[in-house]
This record gives sequence, structure tokens and C-alpha cells, in this order.
Amino acid sequence: MSKSFNVVGVGNALVDILSHVEDQFLAEHGVEKGIMTLIDTDRAVELYSHMGPAVEISGGSAANTIAAIAALGGKTAYVGKVKDEQLGRIFQHDMRAQGAAYDTPLASAGDGHETGRCMVLVSPDGERSMNTYLGWSEFLAPADIVEAEMADAEWIYLEGYRFDGPDSHAAFQKAITATKSAGGKVSVTLSDPFCVARHRAAFRKMVREDVDLLFANEHELKSLYETEDLETAIATARAECETVACTVGAKGAHLVQNDLRVHAPTEATAVVDATGAGDLFAAGVLAGLCRGADLLTAGRRGCVAAAEIIGHIGARPEADLKALMAEKGLMG
Amino acid sequence: MSKSFNVVGVGNALVDILSHVEDQFLAEHGVEKGIMTLIDTDRAVELYSHMGPAVEISGGSAANTIAAIAALGGKTAYVGKVKDEQLGRIFQHDMRAQGAAYDTPLASAGDGHETGRCMVLVSPDGERSMNTYLGWSEFLAPADIVEAEMADAEWIYLEGYRFDGPDSHAAFQKAITATKSAGGKVSVTLSDPFCVARHRAAFRKMVREDVDLLFANEHELKSLYETEDLETAIATARAECETVACTVGAKGAHLVQNDLRVHAPTEATAVVDATGAGDLFAAGVLAGLCRGADLLTAGRRGCVAAAEIIGHIGARPEADLKALMAEKGLMG
Repeated sequence: MSKSFNVVGVGNALVDILSHVEDQFLAEHGVEKGIMTLIDTDRAVELYSHMGPAVEISGGSAANTIAAIAALGGKTAYVGKVKDEQLGRIFQHDMRAQGAAYDTPLASAGDGHETGRCMVLVSPDGERSMNTYLGWSEFLAPADIVEAEMADAEWIYLEGYRFDGPDSHAAFQKAITATKSAGGKVSVTLSDPFCVARHRAAFRKMVREDVDLLFANEHELKSLYETEDLETAIATARAECETVACTVGAKGAHLVQNDLRVHAPTEATAVVDATGAGDLFAAGVLAGLCRGADLLTAGRRGCVAAAEIIGHIGARPEADLKALMAEKGLMG
Repeated sequence: MSKSFNVVGVGNALVDILSHVEDQFLAEHGVEKGIMTLIDTDRAVELYSHMGPAVEISGGSAANTIAAIAALGGKTAYVGKVKDEQLGRIFQHDMRAQGAAYDTPLASAGDGHETGRCMVLVSPDGERSMNTYLGWSEFLAPADIVEAEMADAEWIYLEGYRFDGPDSHAAFQKAITATKSAGGKVSVTLSDPFCVARHRAAFRKMVREDVDLLFANEHELKSLYETEDLETAIATARAECETVACTVGAKGAHLVQNDLRVHAPTEATAVVDATGAGDLFAAGVLAGLCRGADLLTAGRRGCVAAAEIIGHIGARPEADLKALMAEKGLMG
């Protein structure tokens, strides 16, 4: 049976506010380099008041992945909450303009929350330190999950970050049940080692019971299984779910699927802004699998997509991703 | 007497929404290439719905100039209207974060207008086609001009685009009178040949009576004096105001001041996005004159600043403009 969507993503709908900073700025303002920190309204206002001029680009981890799969020619949809005002409508526009279906109702402008935003401070070495005010995206609830949409997806892609919210575990469960009941598969990204630490038991249970494809970087995977040894973590994960794709920074990615294990190398590129590298890796892999690519080809597609995104500011593709894949012989 | 500001700018406060398009898109959607077109709300909604994913960066012609003068170390202030919502506060943030004073009160969120935005469609050749919904910026009124601020400026810089508004001529006159009474000087940019055509008599009168430094490109200057001959236009302008700075695209700029005439060549650069070239040229010139630079040095500073801005997306500087000037030996 042919489904309407290759991949439906669920995550934090955020607009990125990107600014270049010296490392000294991070130290002065107590920003932890290289990770994502959740911040409240007061901290968001305070940090923004000290930030330099910025650029705004739609972001959100799973949203970046879904936008990139759409750019690669995949049929996608996205679920995430923004507010009915200018920034929220910009997010909505960018998702739809990329070709993804996006029908989560805009939250009423009268309510107290704002559209979520992520202040991304980019250091001279390209590393990004993310400060996220979740705003409306935190309140994703089961009612926002349309079961028919999930049932019409080959894959759903769940963003680990979205575990930080009162109703989100239930929303994820509803999405998983609707997808699996209709023969679809479930992929999840662990998102962040600290996010994993906050929700370790829930992640472990979900991976064991529901996940077909697990995305993680080495730090996240080690955090999930509370080990310092990456091979131990990979072995544990592969015992629990069908496919595991673990990125290892500049060394590329390890992918395992049942008895098969492959390594995809990174593409040579200058790092301008690391924002979205993991999101685009997942996009390349998922879009590849949906096209019937073998595991190594899918992994290589992930590395090509990641290389494109770290070569410029922002986590939405600027180059023609399909043309890039074709150049590398990865569209076959 | 030392004044608090080198330059105070008055103009349309806009957020740019930038997207790359093929020339075919312009034809299909009736967009005139290379110029600024004013659009109403319906057209803004319609055009945006067809545009691809975009990036948002604070813009506005005089605002770009003021931000760049601040980046060059000048003391600046800006006057322009935005709404008290997320996009308006982003505009306010970016101006203040660049070091410019910006105290125009935010318009109440309850009113019908929005923060102005300019949809900038960038063609593969780097040319930009601008579609501007003025929103609140159209309603700049005399009450928004703080006479004490104008009196405290060595120069004011008025954006020709702002002539499109019911109360703006009166606002400009108030600014001019306050500045001149306190011994300050008046600079104006003609902004756009069509804008000149809409307000030719008013521009001519202002240039003749009030303007000390006139910025224009060749098309605007010819439109002002209704001649096809650039030399005739320059001769007329120099008879009417002390200094004229006329850009001539890839051929650089002609600057005349009383009996002196100089030519500043462009800097070699790849054109990624022409948005803001004129704004940054004016910034380099004004910042130079405020530092006591001679006319040629000021013109060359203008060309260096313009080259920086056309090398990337958006009209706010990304590189360290002061360092660029120093490299070229133009900070002396």
C-alpha cells in the first residue's frame, strides 16, 4: 500500500536567532559551549539583550530534518506548535514553502506563550551554543497528533528534545501507536546528552519497545546506556532496535542493522556553523532508506547533507541537496 | 561644540525576508527585477505564499546605513516605526545591538498595522527585486522626530523612500529645521528612481534649500533632473548643494564638492546579493567625512563597505568593517 508520506516528524517548532560571538562572550554570560540549554523567559530576555545583531532562520531539530527530506524529494509532514503571530507564521511559511505538509493549528495570539526561539551563539570555530526558549512548542499535546496522518506515514521521526514537556510523552505514544498499527516504522533522535539524562528511563523503554531506527551521537548513546565505552553502547542499542545510526563528529558515522555494520566518512568541508549537522544527517539517512538505498549509501547521504549545512549559517539547506547527492553518485 | 551623534538617520524600519529565486519566478509573479515596489497587504500575503523558504534579517535603507556607521565606530541614532511584537522587537534589538541609539516608541500591538517587511527576491546574478509592505513605517509623523536628538547630530541622514507617507514630509522638515538650527548638516538619499518620480518637486525643493550632501545612483540623479545625461545631472546637483555622491554601479562612484571632483573605484568582489550596496556606500562616505577624511578617501570607504555587503545575503555587515578599512589603509 502506498502511503502519502515518507516521513512525518514531530518536534519543537523553533525559529533560530543566530549571532556570531567570541568565546569570551559565552564565559561572561554563563553560556555552556556546544550544548543546548533550556532557558526561561527572563533568561531569554537577558541573554538577547546582550547578543549582537542576529539573523533569523526557521529551525527546530526535527523541523530541519523534515525540511531537508522534502528538499531531497521526500514526501513529508511536520507536527509542532507555534503562535499565530509574525514569527510563527514565518516558521509555518518556511516549512510549507519547502514542500512539507504542516497543519498543526497556530496557537491563539491572545495566550501568554510566544513562538519558541533558539538563540544560537556561533563561535569562531563554528561550534554552536544553543539557548532555547520553548514557548508554545513545549505544549505539544496528544490532541495535536492526527492519527490518520501518522497512519499514512512510512516512517515517523520523533525529536528527543520534545520529551521536555508535560503532555509530550503521551503525544509521542499516540503517534507511535497510530503509526505502528498501520504498518509504519518509528525513528527517534536522542537530540542531546543532557536531554537523555533528564529522561533516560523513558528513552530506554521507548527504544526497547517501539523504535525501529535510533539516531544519536556518541555522547548521547553513551549517556543513554550510562557507559563510557561507545562500542558497549552500540552493542546494547543494536540488541534493542533494528537499526542504529550513531554519528561520531569529524569521524563520520557508524550504522548497524541486524548483523550488518558500516562506517560512513564525513565529507571534507569548512565548518562555518555546526547548527543542524545531526538533523541533516538524519534527513540524508531517512530519505535514503525511503528510496531503498542500502545502509552504507544511506549513511553517506547523511554525511553529504550534514556537510552542506555546516558550510553556512542556519540549519535549513541553501544548496540543491538533490544535485549534491547526484554529484556524489548517491541518487541511484 | 561636541555633539552626541555623528549621524542620526530617519527612514523605513523594515525586516528583510530574503529568498533566492530563478528569474522565471519574477516573470511568473509579475515582479519587476532590480527595483523596489511598494505592495499592499493582499499582495504581500499572495507573494509570500509563493516564495520559497526565507531568511529574516533587519533591513531598511537608512537603518542599514546607520547600523554600518555604528559598526565603523560612529556614534549614531535611528528614527523609524515598528510594532510592539516579535518582528518589531527583533528590528529594535538588532539596531541597538549594533550600538545605535534607537528610541522611537514601538507602536501598540493592538493596532491594525504590522511591522514593515521587505520581501527581497535574489536572482542568480545577485540582483535583488524588493517588494515592500511598509506597515507601521509608513506612519512616521512629526511627533516621532525628537528635536533635541536632531540638534545633537553633526549630520542627519534622510531616506528618500520615506517620502511615501502622509505625514513624512512634515516629519522631514521638522528634522531638518532642528538640525540646521543647531549647526548640523543634512544628507539625503534619493533611494529609487521611481520614488524620485513620485516626489520629484519635493525632492528638488529639498535639495535646493536644505541638503548639504546628496546621495544618489545614476538612475535616480537623472530622474531627479529629468535628463538622460549623467554629466548634466551631476552639474545641476553640484550647483544646488555642497556635496554630491553619485554611484555608477560596477564603475564605482563620482563625488563632487564645490570645485573638487573625484572618482572612487569599486572593490573586486563576487556579487551574492546586491541588497544594501547603496546603503553601505553612504555609510562609508558619511563615517569617513565625520572622521575628517578627504572626499576621495570617504568615497573609497563607501566602495569598500558596499563590497562587503554584496558579498553575502542581507544588508547588515558580517565582517568587521573597521578592520576592512584598516586593511585598505582607509582608517588614517
